[in-house]
Amino acid sequence: MGFTKTPVRGMCDMLPSDMRLRERLFAMIKKSYGAHGFLHIETPALEPIGNLTSKQGGDNEKLIFKVLKRGAELARALEKGDGAELADSGLRYDLTVPLARYYANNREQLPAPFKSLQIGPVWRADAPQKGRFRQFTQCDIDILGDASNLAEIELIAATAGMLSSLFEGLDDLRGLTVHVNDRRLLAAAAIDAGFREEDVASVLISLDKADKIGFDGIRDELLANGFPAETVERYLARYRDLPPPDAELSGPQAGPLANLADILACVRPMLPPGVTAVYDPLLVRGMGYYTGPIFEVTVDGYGFAIAGGGRYDKMIGKFAGQDVPAVGFSIGFERIVTILKDHAKAPEPIPGETVAILVSGDVPQERKMEALVRARTLRAAGATVVVQPMQKNLRRQIEVLEHEGFRAFEKVR
Amino acid sequence: MGFTKTPVRGMCDMLPSDMRLRERLFAMIKKSYGAHGFLHIETPALEPIGNLTSKQGGDNEKLIFKVLKRGAELARALEKGDGAELADSGLRYDLTVPLARYYANNREQLPAPFKSLQIGPVWRADAPQKGRFRQFTQCDIDILGDASNLAEIELIAATAGMLSSLFEGLDDLRGLTVHVNDRRLLAAAAIDAGFREEDVASVLISLDKADKIGFDGIRDELLANGFPAETVERYLARYRDLPPPDAELSGPQAGPLANLADILACVRPMLPPGVTAVYDPLLVRGMGYYTGPIFEVTVDGYGFAIAGGGRYDKMIGKFAGQDVPAVGFSIGFERIVTILKDHAKAPEPIPGETVAILVSGDVPQERKMEALVRARTLRAAGATVVVQPMQKNLRRQIEVLEHEGFRAFEKVR
Repeated sequence: MGFTKTPVRGMCDMLPSDMRLRERLFAMIKKSYGAHGFLHIETPALEPIGNLTSKQGGDNEKLIFKVLKRGAELARALEKGDGAELADSGLRYDLTVPLARYYANNREQLPAPFKSLQIGPVWRADAPQKGRFRQFTQCDIDILGDASNLAEIELIAATAGMLSSLFEGLDDLRGLTVHVNDRRLLAAAAIDAGFREEDVASVLISLDKADKIGFDGIRDELLANGFPAETVERYLARYRDLPPPDAELSGPQAGPLANLADILACVRPMLPPGVTAVYDPLLVRGMGYYTGPIFEVTVDGYGFAIAGGGRYDKMIGKFAGQDVPAVGFSIGFERIVTILKDHAKAPEPIPGETVAILVSGDVPQERKMEALVRARTLRAAGATVVVQPMQKNLRRQIEVLEHEGFRAFEKVR
Repeated sequence: MGFTKTPVRGMCDMLPSDMRLRERLFAMIKKSYGAHGFLHIETPALEPIGNLTSKQGGDNEKLIFKVLKRGAELARALEKGDGAELADSGLRYDLTVPLARYYANNREQLPAPFKSLQIGPVWRADAPQKGRFRQFTQCDIDILGDASNLAEIELIAATAGMLSSLFEGLDDLRGLTVHVNDRRLLAAAAIDAGFREEDVASVLISLDKADKIGFDGIRDELLANGFPAETVERYLARYRDLPPPDAELSGPQAGPLANLADILACVRPMLPPGVTAVYDPLLVRGMGYYTGPIFEVTVDGYGFAIAGGGRYDKMIGKFAGQDVPAVGFSIGFERIVTILKDHAKAPEPIPGETVAILVSGDVPQERKMEALVRARTLRAAGATVVVQPMQKNLRRQIEVLEHEGFRAFEKVR
């Protein structure tokens, strides 16, 4: 096989200006979440294959990059010939399943409650399309071991504050909305309307499309799925005449509603200017593992959420053998990068003073040494300095350096 | 398959204190190399399988984690049954092969010369042993497109300065030595002694063991490999009576020697206190792709190099179709972490002021809100603050938080 210049399909090379933007965001994220006491951890890129195919990941389990067994184990698997046992590990498709394993493996050495921060790549063999990559960065905070709603409040306040700081200075982007709901309310409403327990997941998948297909679309879809017209109408009526977001929360599901009201009341004074938090009875969230409050953050003018999460009290137990309350909030890092690049006037610049020292090839050693020591002095004073051979086409050389962000030029000849 | 708590064999979970140390080092590395104008880039974890099996990686090519093809392609490969074509990509085993591909793919958008900084994980299915992992971090700087020795000088000065800053404050570790040699001198000496061109690689593998098996061991090995005694003796005599490191460099290989002398003269005034640079005729370096100067950094008291690199002018051409001069320096990040952990008095602490606010479960909403706003104020002032439910065993809760590094405690009840 020959050499290939392009990256693996659906993955991308990061240019220096891309990396400067990403690194600036990572630093802000780490600083902001660090102030909230989230502890940065890391798990390996590979997970045991059984953890990735354990039905925790929904459709993502169809998108796993599987890693081939080696040596004798591979030979044995090949003898069977069906391809099902060729892999013993795979690249993680999210950071939540690895976190559950990590906590089960290391909990003796972790504080309780444990506030975790993870930033790292995940891999999904999705159909490549614009803005969707097969390797992309996720950024998750989770609180494990806190059953109280202080966990939700801390997560929402931390995420809202962090996002607001990332968007600072982009005035047309100041409107962020935190939507909250509770998985139990969604399930109760469906059952209340007459759906069966086992149909709730399917009904919620339809309800989740409200902003795309509207209530008429949801009705058509539910009817097409064979649900009784009466049940469907009763269900939709409940969502059609929703109270305004600020109405007092009350109803048959008093516990979860009171909890949401408390979360909202406590979160609101913590929110930075331009961020609002609302009860959103239509918020569904895709993953099946949520057990309580769920949340999402939207940006005015963009049709997608830039962060989402919720409580999942039953997942860690599958690894640890004992349930551990857990809440997580994940920001859509790549989406945020897309938004910031949309709004940037120019590629991310090299920060601070920048100097290029261009040394002619025929200068005596002492002149070269002087140039190098000069570079050292400038660097110690905080500047970014390159020392490079002066090229024949000096004008072109300076243009290239200017394009990269260098502003001062010193010629040694 | 069930759930597994432990990471994939040979890989490890990073605890919060490990990550704090690593993140502190990453920040210092980025800052120091950034000041030298190295531009941070990133390539995907996966490379096309042909790039990884192209004989650029030496023995590392035996250690590739291969990623399974999918769907119809996998079915076709399985029909052949021999397992050789099951993978279309693999996890990178170093950062040099991906850099060569990256440069070939993106050179139109990169400055020339291009100073690259890469920090990221690589994967090798090595036999797991203490201190050696199957996923580990590499940190490479490379200068592409500069044929002059300014490239070597900049790389050595940048690396020495950076390493010295990482070890600052650890007084027993101040002695760093930069060893330089030239691949062409090694090859010329072997041929001069009477070895054939095609045996040079094998002879150098033996010479590389001088510090482990001594000259008698090298003689035994060369004789066992069937080389004539006369040639072996002539060869060893050359290295037995080496000039002192500071002797003037001269000899039949005048070009490479004068180049090393110039590099050393220019590098020395740039070195921080405690770092010395020497000509080391016994420095070999493992990889076969070096074409000129090679270098390594050792720490007094440790029997291994913590950084190594050299010039490899012929590799990029394999991807770009046209040779591009290239020099790289790679630091052994995991080895440096090991040394720093050996010398640390305690796990890496949470920096700055740390406050834990413990809120009793039965306080009224206003008290909870006050506690949260107080946390917000402290965070804005730079402190790391957690807000968590007060536990029944308050003393134990505070012990756990103290162990994690929290120093101030505020009780809300």
